[in-house]
Amino acid sequence: MRGHDWSWLHPVIICVIIAAVAYAMFNFGSVKRLVVGKPMRTRDLRESRNLLVWWMALPVLSADLYSSVAYGPEAGMTELTGLGENAKWLILPITAMTVLLLIILITSYIMGVIAYPNGGGAYAISKDNFQRAWVPLLAASALMVDYVLTVAVSVASGIQNLASSYPVLQGHETSLSLLCVLIILLVNLRGISESSKVFAYPTYVFMACMLLMIGVGFWDELRHGFVQPHTPPFGVVPQGLTLMLLLKAFSSACSALTGVETISNAVPIFREGKNGAIKAYIALGLVTGVTLLGFAYHLYVKGISVNPNNTMLSQLAEGYFGHGFMYQFIMWSTLVVLILAANSTFTGFPQVAALLATDGYLPRALRLRGDRLGYSNGMIVLAALASLLIEIFHAQTNNLIPLYAIGVFVAFTVAQLGLIKRWARVKGRLWRLKAGINAFGAFITALVSVIFAVTKFTSGAWIVLVVIPLMIYLAMKVHRHYQDVADELRIDLKVDRPQQHRIVSVVLVSGIHRVVLDTISFAMSSTPNVLALYIGFDDESIEKMEEKWEAWGNPCRLVTVKSEYRSLLQPLSKFIRRLETYEGGKPDHIQLFIAQFVPKKWWHNLLHNQTSLLIRAWMLRHKDVVVTTVPYHLKK
Amino acid sequence: MRGHDWSWLHPVIICVIIAAVAYAMFNFGSVKRLVVGKPMRTRDLRESRNLLVWWMALPVLSADLYSSVAYGPEAGMTELTGLGENAKWLILPITAMTVLLLIILITSYIMGVIAYPNGGGAYAISKDNFQRAWVPLLAASALMVDYVLTVAVSVASGIQNLASSYPVLQGHETSLSLLCVLIILLVNLRGISESSKVFAYPTYVFMACMLLMIGVGFWDELRHGFVQPHTPPFGVVPQGLTLMLLLKAFSSACSALTGVETISNAVPIFREGKNGAIKAYIALGLVTGVTLLGFAYHLYVKGISVNPNNTMLSQLAEGYFGHGFMYQFIMWSTLVVLILAANSTFTGFPQVAALLATDGYLPRALRLRGDRLGYSNGMIVLAALASLLIEIFHAQTNNLIPLYAIGVFVAFTVAQLGLIKRWARVKGRLWRLKAGINAFGAFITALVSVIFAVTKFTSGAWIVLVVIPLMIYLAMKVHRHYQDVADELRIDLKVDRPQQHRIVSVVLVSGIHRVVLDTISFAMSSTPNVLALYIGFDDESIEKMEEKWEAWGNPCRLVTVKSEYRSLLQPLSKFIRRLETYEGGKPDHIQLFIAQFVPKKWWHNLLHNQTSLLIRAWMLRHKDVVVTTVPYHLKK
Repeated sequence: MRGHDWSWLHPVIICVIIAAVAYAMFNFGSVKRLVVGKPMRTRDLRESRNLLVWWMALPVLSADLYSSVAYGPEAGMTELTGLGENAKWLILPITAMTVLLLIILITSYIMGVIAYPNGGGAYAISKDNFQRAWVPLLAASALMVDYVLTVAVSVASGIQNLASSYPVLQGHETSLSLLCVLIILLVNLRGISESSKVFAYPTYVFMACMLLMIGVGFWDELRHGFVQPHTPPFGVVPQGLTLMLLLKAFSSACSALTGVETISNAVPIFREGKNGAIKAYIALGLVTGVTLLGFAYHLYVKGISVNPNNTMLSQLAEGYFGHGFMYQFIMWSTLVVLILAANSTFTGFPQVAALLATDGYLPRALRLRGDRLGYSNGMIVLAALASLLIEIFHAQTNNLIPLYAIGVFVAFTVAQLGLIKRWARVKGRLWRLKAGINAFGAFITALVSVIFAVTKFTSGAWIVLVVIPLMIYLAMKVHRHYQDVADELRIDLKVDRPQQHRIVSVVLVSGIHRVVLDTISFAMSSTPNVLALYIGFDDESIEKMEEKWEAWGNPCRLVTVKSEYRSLLQPLSKFIRRLETYEGGKPDHIQLFIAQFVPKKWWHNLLHNQTSLLIRAWMLRHKDVVVTTVPYHLKK
Repeated sequence: MRGHDWSWLHPVIICVIIAAVAYAMFNFGSVKRLVVGKPMRTRDLRESRNLLVWWMALPVLSADLYSSVAYGPEAGMTELTGLGENAKWLILPITAMTVLLLIILITSYIMGVIAYPNGGGAYAISKDNFQRAWVPLLAASALMVDYVLTVAVSVASGIQNLASSYPVLQGHETSLSLLCVLIILLVNLRGISESSKVFAYPTYVFMACMLLMIGVGFWDELRHGFVQPHTPPFGVVPQGLTLMLLLKAFSSACSALTGVETISNAVPIFREGKNGAIKAYIALGLVTGVTLLGFAYHLYVKGISVNPNNTMLSQLAEGYFGHGFMYQFIMWSTLVVLILAANSTFTGFPQVAALLATDGYLPRALRLRGDRLGYSNGMIVLAALASLLIEIFHAQTNNLIPLYAIGVFVAFTVAQLGLIKRWARVKGRLWRLKAGINAFGAFITALVSVIFAVTKFTSGAWIVLVVIPLMIYLAMKVHRHYQDVADELRIDLKVDRPQQHRIVSVVLVSGIHRVVLDTISFAMSSTPNVLALYIGFDDESIEKMEEKWEAWGNPCRLVTVKSEYRSLLQPLSKFIRRLETYEGGKPDHIQLFIAQFVPKKWWHNLLHNQTSLLIRAWMLRHKDVVVTTVPYHLKK
């Protein structure tokens, strides 16, 4: 064994993990309680809802949108890296366009809040306004794809920022990101209410940091001039710039706009109702716009370049504050807010999944609330998918960005089309104006979606354009299945009543001992027609069994079968076929009694053949046989 | 996505594997048949036994021993690498000692063949002659440890030889070795009889290659002199040589002696009986001795050094034949024979495991013959353990050698002590001489075992010295458990007869639909006391259920329970506790009826809650409840 490496530890670690998993499986209850916490009552659900004043709800609901300032402008500039110094000024018009789009979106969403003051996501809005099932499904699947991407992008970006300030972490981004997703999942399984005030503070701290940095930037420019030695030229058309490239940069920068929908989904948590939500929207739009523009302007003045090992945010902070406390503080608050953004998705995704599951478009298990009242299954699915993405793309934000934001813009478009239909139907005050705003918004978001799809098609967007239709198709298939089942199971309470059935019972015996005694006793006490079936591997054992049975006083008829292939399943299923086609009258039901050892210690399971499990599973799947398992609890 | 790497393929591969595993699970029968082949009848077992003439049995049974010449001398020299040129001559005395030991072993084993002409491994011999259970267990576990190591060492060494001739394979030794073990496992699961003549030819080819190479070596030395320019000095004591180091080199070289026991275990396959086995032993001893000595001599004359990327065998063959056809031929036949050595272990290990299982020292599942009549479970365990070793030690023969051969020498010692006891008990012609030979053999093998343990303790032998006692301890625990169970299950056929029990049946209902109708009908036809239990998550659903039950004409008593924690298990187990402690007379048995959906397509399982599985597993483990599963096969 080589002394200088630790690889011999791997098998030890593997053994420990296997032992832990085995322990957890056999003591699932207590392990789960340790990790997830004490179960909560359903009625606690209502009690845990507390209303927030709008300026507290604002930071709680804005982590997703506002945190994107940490990577949005950088994502745009990454596309233009190849063009050199002369392209750097383009960050200004691109960011301006992004902010314009943000204003349009917020205005449109305010219309949404007015229309659905009880909170309505894109799925609810489109379900309410479109007859065809695929329209809300399009909105929902687009949104779900983007929720998964939000987790992946936010976590990856947070870890990248962290690795910028602590180079020792570089090269471990993927593992750290996966760990981070796992921690967020566990925290959410324990259950943290979306409306918890705890989330307000870090977001405010991060906002304060960003605004402070922008202020310091202007102070710096007042002292050292608005054109500094590093400032790249302005207004030059760089060599190699194409419209395609420009649009691509714009669409990447738009990844900063994901999360706009959060407030509109959560109107009910505002103490002031929809007015609070509108106030929050306006405030959020102002702060985000100022931050994006200011940030872009300082990046330009300082002439900062894209560096995969040092985010632009980190470079700017370094420029102003050096590597001191303030820099650390900004980096850590960025990480916290990015993680809060990922965290907020753990409420959004499971909610949409639960809505779809309730309508029969996704597996029903997604509708169940876990011990801590959250939709645990949805959370687990989200974490698994996000981890898969992080693993595939090696936790590189720039690899993930091309997939990002298309979904959200598709969902925006569908939701606004739904709102237009609603205004036209419901009418009401100023409905033409409202519908007009939404029509304009729908046009712009549709245009942006198309730009996204075209410009980023080859660099990854095709994945999203394949996945979304696939999800719609599968959702339809699932729905079809649930409907078929419902049709099949429906009965007429007046006509279909329980009936008397003729049952033949078969007890599988492996010899004559206490377990067989117990099982036969039970079977004979329960049903009248009991047969014992012995499957032997050779003639001697069969003869011996018949003799012993005789000596035991023939408690019921014994049938013996020889299994030439040493299998129990084959002769058993042959025997059942014979019973099923019995001429003297086929029984309505065949009931199979199987004894099951239950040892005291979990490792003793290894010492007893698990044939009964196998037989039960096989029989249930392949035959119309009722299987009764009679447990025998070993005393030692 | 980065275009230049293929890592994006990983998730695709993972998905394909998951899909394949899922398919295999749901179509286990057909997949197994494809891989393993058609099941065979038990009576084919006798027919497949065909007897071999001794010179055909010899190569079949000698792959394990003879193949070790490919790594034995090299393993010895590796220990002395640090001492430089002057140490190279030591290969001659070390190999001579090894051959001497081989002669002693073969003589002792011929005594074993005389004593147990029906074939008797170390376990059988020591079980026959020692009262204490731990002695045969010591022999068996030592042997099993070494069987596992044989697979790991042979495969790793074969792949290392291959990588010597095809450097492109270097760096992939571990994966290739694991693949190789998997292939050997699959071939053995399909079942190739140990006595198949197919195995005779490659071993003879390899023997011929080795003898040819030794002949060519002598020819070369006749032409170019017995002392060549590269020949290192002879008889010098190299600086830094210690007795410890010398003994360590010797014990490593002794890894060439594993596999001596094979013939003695397989006496019944010789057409001439024990005389054939004795002839085969003498012939094998001669050929192996000549090969080892000749090989060592030429290595010395050519002054070949240990090179981790080019085995000594490969270097010698290169020296004589260049990189042409003959070299390739030798390398490939070496690989084939090393793999046959690993392959032969797939008969030996499962046989010993089955013997132990029959005696109740290992899980009984190891005693079952698979579809193709081999002990499949034992084979799978062997492959898994060997793969683990290969993974831990990165398929480096030199890392594995320190663990190797101790076990076999311990088993040799125990077996010979058993033989001495037998001679003393049975007496017979020349018994003193036979006992004397075995006593000498036992002394030498015990000495060698101690030398092994001491010299290689820190480089890995300690693992074996920990594992063997642990295995003995666990085997005793397993035996104890089986005995306890047997005591517990034993009944008196005259006294203990089936009795009438009072049963209360509980049907778990989730609403009123066709599945519930079926289940209730079945339950009411089967037992007299039927209760329906409905567990609701809120008051409304419970009220609705009670009304519907009324409208359904109250087929049996309905009990409703509200589950505040949205769990079924908790209220169900509470209800069962209430029944168990019912004052009006506790029933002898509680029977729980659970309906189980069986969908047509496997992926539909995802769409139905698998609660029934969970409840069944939990109930069987934690409660003394009989669980009856009534399947409902969905039509679509």
